Amino acid sequence: MMHTDQSTEQPHSPRIVIVGGVAGGASAAARLRRLDEHASITLIERGADVSFANCGLPYHIGGEIEDRGKLSVQTPASLRAQLAIDVQARTEAISIDRETKTLRIHKLDTDVEEDLGYDKLILSPGATPLKPPLEGIDLPGIYTLRNLQDMDRIKAAAESAQSVLVIGAGFIGLEMAEQLIHLHKDVTLIELVEQVLPQMDAEMVRAVEQELMDNGVRLLLGDGISGFSQGDGTVLSAQLNSGKTITADMVILSIGVRPENQLAKDAGLELGARGHIRTNAHMQTSDPNVYAVGDASETFDPILGGPTAIALGGPANRQGRTAADHIVLGERARPYPGSIGTSIVRVFDVAAGVTGHSEKRLQQMEIEYGKTIITDFNHASYFPGATHLTVKVLWEKSTGRILGGQANGIEGVDKRLDVLATAIKGRLTVDDLEHLELAYAPPFGVAKDPLNTAGFSANNIRSGKLRPVYSLAAAEGSQLLDARPAETHSRSRQYPLPGAAPTSR
Amino acid sequence: MMHTDQSTEQPHSPRIVIVGGVAGGASAAARLRRLDEHASITLIERGADVSFANCGLPYHIGGEIEDRGKLSVQTPASLRAQLAIDVQARTEAISIDRETKTLRIHKLDTDVEEDLGYDKLILSPGATPLKPPLEGIDLPGIYTLRNLQDMDRIKAAAESAQSVLVIGAGFIGLEMAEQLIHLHKDVTLIELVEQVLPQMDAEMVRAVEQELMDNGVRLLLGDGISGFSQGDGTVLSAQLNSGKTITADMVILSIGVRPENQLAKDAGLELGARGHIRTNAHMQTSDPNVYAVGDASETFDPILGGPTAIALGGPANRQGRTAADHIVLGERARPYPGSIGTSIVRVFDVAAGVTGHSEKRLQQMEIEYGKTIITDFNHASYFPGATHLTVKVLWEKSTGRILGGQANGIEGVDKRLDVLATAIKGRLTVDDLEHLELAYAPPFGVAKDPLNTAGFSANNIRSGKLRPVYSLAAAEGSQLLDARPAETHSRSRQYPLPGAAPTSR
Repeated sequence: MMHTDQSTEQPHSPRIVIVGGVAGGASAAARLRRLDEHASITLIERGADVSFANCGLPYHIGGEIEDRGKLSVQTPASLRAQLAIDVQARTEAISIDRETKTLRIHKLDTDVEEDLGYDKLILSPGATPLKPPLEGIDLPGIYTLRNLQDMDRIKAAAESAQSVLVIGAGFIGLEMAEQLIHLHKDVTLIELVEQVLPQMDAEMVRAVEQELMDNGVRLLLGDGISGFSQGDGTVLSAQLNSGKTITADMVILSIGVRPENQLAKDAGLELGARGHIRTNAHMQTSDPNVYAVGDASETFDPILGGPTAIALGGPANRQGRTAADHIVLGERARPYPGSIGTSIVRVFDVAAGVTGHSEKRLQQMEIEYGKTIITDFNHASYFPGATHLTVKVLWEKSTGRILGGQANGIEGVDKRLDVLATAIKGRLTVDDLEHLELAYAPPFGVAKDPLNTAGFSANNIRSGKLRPVYSLAAAEGSQLLDARPAETHSRSRQYPLPGAAPTSR
Repeated sequence: MMHTDQSTEQPHSPRIVIVGGVAGGASAAARLRRLDEHASITLIERGADVSFANCGLPYHIGGEIEDRGKLSVQTPASLRAQLAIDVQARTEAISIDRETKTLRIHKLDTDVEEDLGYDKLILSPGATPLKPPLEGIDLPGIYTLRNLQDMDRIKAAAESAQSVLVIGAGFIGLEMAEQLIHLHKDVTLIELVEQVLPQMDAEMVRAVEQELMDNGVRLLLGDGISGFSQGDGTVLSAQLNSGKTITADMVILSIGVRPENQLAKDAGLELGARGHIRTNAHMQTSDPNVYAVGDASETFDPILGGPTAIALGGPANRQGRTAADHIVLGERARPYPGSIGTSIVRVFDVAAGVTGHSEKRLQQMEIEYGKTIITDFNHASYFPGATHLTVKVLWEKSTGRILGGQANGIEGVDKRLDVLATAIKGRLTVDDLEHLELAYAPPFGVAKDPLNTAGFSANNIRSGKLRPVYSLAAAEGSQLLDARPAETHSRSRQYPLPGAAPTSR
């Protein structure tokens, strides 16, 4: 049922070369073929695999995804067979000659170099795990996780390891900690800042931290690594900034990523402040014949303006598609609308995530904002299985426009984040949130959804009807009374008021 | 942390009388008290209960909600104690004198009539189950479900019944059929039109119909009841339009509701075409001192304009709040933004729902629209437990603006409906849908969410890149080839192409 408008009389089908065959690159290749039956599409990939499910890597290590083959969404062979893409795996792109529109490549298996001419070049090199130049960083037993080979190495090492030190409590660090507990390892998770998930606000990740500890993860917040040394046998010893020493059979470094920008930099393409490849709304770099997509590219923040770079699979896929559209459709192509960084992680039974800006970030940007945090049930409380959900909403003080949202809980976290992300897209205000008409039946929601309640609360705050107190420290020296009804009080184990005397019946 | 701005010197706190103590009325009462500590608030309720969870009634009958007490969100006593509402249960409102601003009430237990003066009156009478004047309609064993007493009667009758005939396959009919199967009854479900869930489009409810049959419900579509007669003993006999006869130990009538408008009609308030009480955006009726909220009220359609009336709990609750806001805050109150009819039902393992307009409705309204239907996985297909999800999106042909959406599947249906409802609120187009940045991690979603894919598909259709064929009848006389890759083909058991010869490897 798919057909192309491409006329067979077209004089010249473009030669398109894509560097990087995972999310952004593979999406671009597939979309290009669907738009143009005749284009010459070459996909260069340094690794052995293309289009693998990188978000699934931790879950194969932990055994939750048993079948390794499931992580290969496409293979070089399937891309060739189904979409007639010329896939060159184990091939490195080493330099771009923008004058002659030529890409120099190096075939790793045969050690042969070649030049590939292009009409359009798409760079989708991705990002590489950060490996700070610490003493002992190259000792055996220290791993990073980026591709299937890294995954295989970690999975093999974990078989004989008893203790694992995970460094960095971002998404990958948390997923690895969870999966290693599934493997019955002794897991220590260390994070430089005083909270897990640094892209979220501290009070919104406390439930995640508790869940980690409840499941046996040793959590060290506000501490970093100053170096590694070889311990006894295969045991590694990690020195912490605090002076402590931790020993472990293996170490997983997940402290962040940096964009793979060397090729772009050498070619003189403009880079952003953090080294990402600058692009316009069609994902064109400073050279209109060269596009950049995915984790290595810089796009813009549609909420407050300015550049942003988001290393996530969803944006990478859609940026690949955007670049392909522009190459084939030209000015008829729709621009990329920017990235807001919606993301989520599951940690045992708890989910937590964020969309748009955090409070922390708004403070850094010196934006005047309002906020509310509410806790409610994910679905009708009288229906079996209702669990607590906490939602934080941030809005522009002057207009009420939603700038960001965060949520945590057992069930329904992804749904509320998605609604908030869509609300941000629609430039909705907290007034609009109050009256969102969401799908309600007892198994699925609440007649007044937690997001409606967040809207009610936001509006009570904006109108001056409610003056929230965010910290009980403000009450020092005064007497604290918990005047909530006994029923509310007893239901609020998540939010007790320490030291408060109950006044209620 | 809640305080009111109300000055104690205010000369006169308003006397507010509310008729109807369930969703809309109870919400109005609670919000009024929170806005005005001093107002006199009287709540008149004909039944014995206020603020009960009417959406939960089928689930107590089926035993899924075991504790009957959980259905009482509030009681007359708790509303009095916590919010100082003067609740008069078992009291009927019999007439309104708008000149003297007086409500005549009748206390059912003491058979006493009284006049209540009001400054503002809120009508939240709800809707009553339709009971067509068929022969035998008043025979014992024929039930409707509106309140806790109806629930108790049905639950008691179901204990001794073996066979149950459910008439009407809307939300309540489906929930009752499901719960009665849980009770191991022999259930027949009959619906006048040729599909269940008539507010949805036929092809989007086929999965629900299959699920009902797979779970043992005898489903009779396109047939109606012409009358009832007494069979042997307590057995009822139902005559169908088709000439068939069905016998059952009990009958549940769930063919729809009509607004309880008598009080409003007698008082000369304006009614809409279907008998609902007309309101403005502050829920005021044609008399500015009388408000109407909930199932009996008519509001407006924010998508295409014009009046609409939606009998659902979410709108009722928020309309009650809107009326309360207007009474206390006057022109500072925010208007009600209309209702789009977002709704969902769970039928065994399948969920199905709708937001905004169906295709059927757009055809009735003679709106030029486009549509797409896509099937995808609810979360990453390589992650355990992925299930199929089908989404339909309808858009305004000229602009691409989303006019409605429907979904069915095992998991994640509510989430996609909520996103579509929010997209409608933000007046987003299918172009926007393509780039919605939704929360993705393998347990929760797909890097290209089914809604992104629906956006891709919509845009392929709008740009002429894809010409969908919605019915294979169009192919009659021609040969049908299934040219999809073998893998796709084998995964598409939900959408086989009957009679098609596979061409793929």
